[in-house]
Amino acid sequence: MDQAAHGQLTDLSTDECWELITTTPVGRIAWTSPHGPVVVPVNFAVNGRAIKIRTTAYSSMVQEADGERVAFEVDRVDEPTRSGWSVLVRGRAEVRYGEPDDGTLPEPWPRGPRPATVVVDADEITGRWLNSPGQ
Amino acid sequence: MDQAAHGQLTDLSTDECWELITTTPVGRIAWTSPHGPVVVPVNFAVNGRAIKIRTTAYSSMVQEADGERVAFEVDRVDEPTRSGWSVLVRGRAEVRYGEPDDGTLPEPWPRGPRPATVVVDADEITGRWLNSPGQ
Repeated sequence: MDQAAHGQLTDLSTDECWELITTTPVGRIAWTSPHGPVVVPVNFAVNGRAIKIRTTAYSSMVQEADGERVAFEVDRVDEPTRSGWSVLVRGRAEVRYGEPDDGTLPEPWPRGPRPATVVVDADEITGRWLNSPGQ
Repeated sequence: MDQAAHGQLTDLSTDECWELITTTPVGRIAWTSPHGPVVVPVNFAVNGRAIKIRTTAYSSMVQEADGERVAFEVDRVDEPTRSGWSVLVRGRAEVRYGEPDDGTLPEPWPRGPRPATVVVDADEITGRWLNSPGQ
């Protein structure tokens, strides 16, 4: 094995990022509140170059992220080998109500109504792979 | 089983949050860059009521987060049962160089020097538990 590659961080291509982001149902959305950044795990769907998230009508996400720049992160970590990957989507969030469920909406994991859809239009996607020091 | 509890989100106590945060070696730090929020996965250590992260001297984290409010998130998700928990730490980040490795510094997973230590002093910690819809 290539010793030089141990614990190496490598950039992922845009295509690799979009491919990896569909392999996990839960990501994390971050926005900037008046009291600094907030990060919340959410389940989501990818629709073209947008991320769709469903939330409650009066959530902080709706109140603070609508029309603002946000970040959306997914990752997969393998603790025993200390390897993994992460993908970061950046773009503007838009809150929509009454989005038709045309198969592009995620099914919310928590109970209760989630009438608001937060759509993050990706204008940037980047990712990195950390390979195992033992590989 | 209690049907009413299916897919229920429940707040975690402060003690539960501090306990859970030590059960996983990787979290995500978020800060606000000039181009909006950024989220980066990092391995970390908990020291008292602070989170310690090691990074390179010229990372965006060092350049953009020093002295600013940041968020630090950890979670654990079980996809088959759609359950899990998440903890969010908020506070101000401070970048230090030459921190003595007195056992409170994390061992960086990526290769290469990580001379900068980002210390997040927690002034707020919150968390939630999502139980399984099948439980």
